[in-house]
Amino acid sequence: MMISRPLSEESFQERPDRILATELSRYAGKDVVLQGWLHRKRALKSVAFLILRDRSGLAQVVVRDPRAMAEADLLGAETVLRIAGTVTENPQAPGGFEVTSPVVTTLSEPVAAPPFDLYRPTVPATLPTILDHAPVTLRHPRLRAPHAIAAASVAGFRRALDARGFTEIHTPKVVASATESGADVFAIDWFGGEAYLAQSPQFFKQAMVGVFERVYETGPVFRAEPHDTARHLAQYTSLDAELGFVADHRDVMAVLREVLAGMTEAVGEGALDACALLEVDLPRVPERIPEIHFTDAQELIARDTGEDPRGEPDLSPAHERFLSRWALREYGSEFLFVTGYPMAKRPFYTHPEPGREEYSNSFDLLFRGLELVTGGQRLHRYDDYLAALARRGEAPEPYAGYLAAFRHGMPPHGGFALGLERWTARLTGADNIRRTTLFPRDLHRLTP
Amino acid sequence: MMISRPLSEESFQERPDRILATELSRYAGKDVVLQGWLHRKRALKSVAFLILRDRSGLAQVVVRDPRAMAEADLLGAETVLRIAGTVTENPQAPGGFEVTSPVVTTLSEPVAAPPFDLYRPTVPATLPTILDHAPVTLRHPRLRAPHAIAAASVAGFRRALDARGFTEIHTPKVVASATESGADVFAIDWFGGEAYLAQSPQFFKQAMVGVFERVYETGPVFRAEPHDTARHLAQYTSLDAELGFVADHRDVMAVLREVLAGMTEAVGEGALDACALLEVDLPRVPERIPEIHFTDAQELIARDTGEDPRGEPDLSPAHERFLSRWALREYGSEFLFVTGYPMAKRPFYTHPEPGREEYSNSFDLLFRGLELVTGGQRLHRYDDYLAALARRGEAPEPYAGYLAAFRHGMPPHGGFALGLERWTARLTGADNIRRTTLFPRDLHRLTP
Repeated sequence: MMISRPLSEESFQERPDRILATELSRYAGKDVVLQGWLHRKRALKSVAFLILRDRSGLAQVVVRDPRAMAEADLLGAETVLRIAGTVTENPQAPGGFEVTSPVVTTLSEPVAAPPFDLYRPTVPATLPTILDHAPVTLRHPRLRAPHAIAAASVAGFRRALDARGFTEIHTPKVVASATESGADVFAIDWFGGEAYLAQSPQFFKQAMVGVFERVYETGPVFRAEPHDTARHLAQYTSLDAELGFVADHRDVMAVLREVLAGMTEAVGEGALDACALLEVDLPRVPERIPEIHFTDAQELIARDTGEDPRGEPDLSPAHERFLSRWALREYGSEFLFVTGYPMAKRPFYTHPEPGREEYSNSFDLLFRGLELVTGGQRLHRYDDYLAALARRGEAPEPYAGYLAAFRHGMPPHGGFALGLERWTARLTGADNIRRTTLFPRDLHRLTP
Repeated sequence: MMISRPLSEESFQERPDRILATELSRYAGKDVVLQGWLHRKRALKSVAFLILRDRSGLAQVVVRDPRAMAEADLLGAETVLRIAGTVTENPQAPGGFEVTSPVVTTLSEPVAAPPFDLYRPTVPATLPTILDHAPVTLRHPRLRAPHAIAAASVAGFRRALDARGFTEIHTPKVVASATESGADVFAIDWFGGEAYLAQSPQFFKQAMVGVFERVYETGPVFRAEPHDTARHLAQYTSLDAELGFVADHRDVMAVLREVLAGMTEAVGEGALDACALLEVDLPRVPERIPEIHFTDAQELIARDTGEDPRGEPDLSPAHERFLSRWALREYGSEFLFVTGYPMAKRPFYTHPEPGREEYSNSFDLLFRGLELVTGGQRLHRYDDYLAALARRGEAPEPYAGYLAAFRHGMPPHGGFALGLERWTARLTGADNIRRTTLFPRDLHRLTP
């Protein structure tokens, strides 16, 4: 009596009677079932073409029966269909195969048309329209593609680090005080008290070096920057890594090089169709990414551009672009490490450069003209933290939880953080980072 | 001039002069370097033993030189050490090998002792002490182990779904309205307006079925439940999956079975030492997990326990334990699906059971006496959503962003959510879910 309808063997796999759109060529002459969305329909006098979209791609279905043609004519865009038919070779069909003699069943009907035709090769809509209607506009193959690339990228990030003895961690997104930087935090009503959304897992990942030596996290971070630009998001996905027993920041850079190679490789394997659609030119990650010290970079800029940035504590966006072009020209590399940024512009936990304490064992990674990753060696001695805070005129008490790890023996360590959306935007050439975020959150946007 | 100190070949790998504690047996007779923490020291009259801990485990270092013994005597627990010495076979040493003739270098000194001895086999501290000092107490092998198991579990979750055509997504953790359930949400000051921390990625993952058909997310969710119990956390890690083109909830259960098998397998591969230390008895995931309908479960309880729960809309914890014992006895399974819960106790988006509309196409998965996973088939037609909201006396307007996906053709779909910490707690037999969370957040705890 008790076990009603036990699970059949078959149900442990995808229902065997369904194939995917891109698998047609394997079933020439066979009867198959497809399921997906009505992407497009075209009616001629004696034949109608239905283009079905599923997660794999598109398939052409040919309707010749007059009654079926009349029924097909009534189907709205995005109707969810089950199509049973015969796979037939046709050199004119996309992919060389199509489905003929179809029996078309409607699984679910739309109640409204999408805000624009999803089948058009380009997207005839402004970014606000795209974002306002994200649940349907993301179905457009060009708008979906960046997210397939993002998913493959994260898989590559994890695979590269898993292979190197890293452990994945999950850290709090709610913290008692805003330690990363005083401003730009979101306040939360925490059971009647006040708390803040975490701006980064920085302190937690450092503490976890004491436990697992090598850790990473792929999770959301929150920045309450009131900037309405193409580059700012209030929530983004931070790919964070931290490792102990480094000699200095160069050991961190070496791991980052492997991570970038792993991400690029994973995108090439796992999101090939998306890359082809968006004409993504995957970068070659050199065996050795060229690097230049901040002071040398300033000299180079002074020598070659007529400007003189020496004495400035940071690089301007224009100077980052100049340096990227220089690295491409001189070393054939789309990546460039700039090392040794002045301490004045780095967080208090940054390790200074031995012998030149006004500079730091830190780096930015420039990729195609923009900063993609920030990282470096951190302080690891408790007394150095107290001194660093004192130098910045900050009391140690709000940092007590953070500093605890360093009271109990921490090895030299360092790490980096890579913004997933920024990486995807650089790969796909997106003009706005919101195109690489499923449901962006910013100053003006909380829905959908 | 520009490329100062190019990265050496060697630095692309872990520094080759360092080996891990568990690798000693491979280097018998060789000179090696270990790095790690001083886990324990024992001084006898003419010899001192240093036990070094690194991410792989423990290694015994034998000090016989009188001056080195005197120096070792001064080292505090958790001092970070570099040890160069010779690997020597010794059947009495843990693992059969030890390091002799060591040169000991201090990399970093502690400024305080841990709140208890980290080398003791059991943990002589209360849970609040453990949590207050998490950055150092998590270094205890028994306290670290659950997190190694959690990391392996998440890797197994992803691997199982990656192999089945799922795409990873990253969704907003901040939402405009509290849709999952009215109460128990954290309010955020969002640029001067009000927003809420997301209680689940439910609506986003459903919308993404329209884009990728099969999606998953592993990320934080937030529940403002003011419960101070061993089972409640204000933030936990939810392992969410959702898939389209299902026949009903059974297709979801079939995927969940594969996921559980993948997680168990990954723990067995990737966290074997942690399992051995905690004496974790990994479950066998049956090819077919037994299932029982809610109404049949109530009848069984009435027949066998003398209680009569019929008419109740939910199962009590005691009844869940009874059913788990029953499944183990009758089917040898530590897992049991209970299906068909009354609609009254399930969220409005739940798909009713065809022909018995007061029940639902939903399920809970019981594991070792507790609910581990909740899932089911969802409504997929726009009109069904409007009707479901109307039946509950709710207006559709606050759900507009959510409902948008269903206006444009959504296939029959369903999914599930598995709480990572709860899974790890069941595996490890933890008496409190906080033992499976690195830095728990709850009614009373916001630090460290």
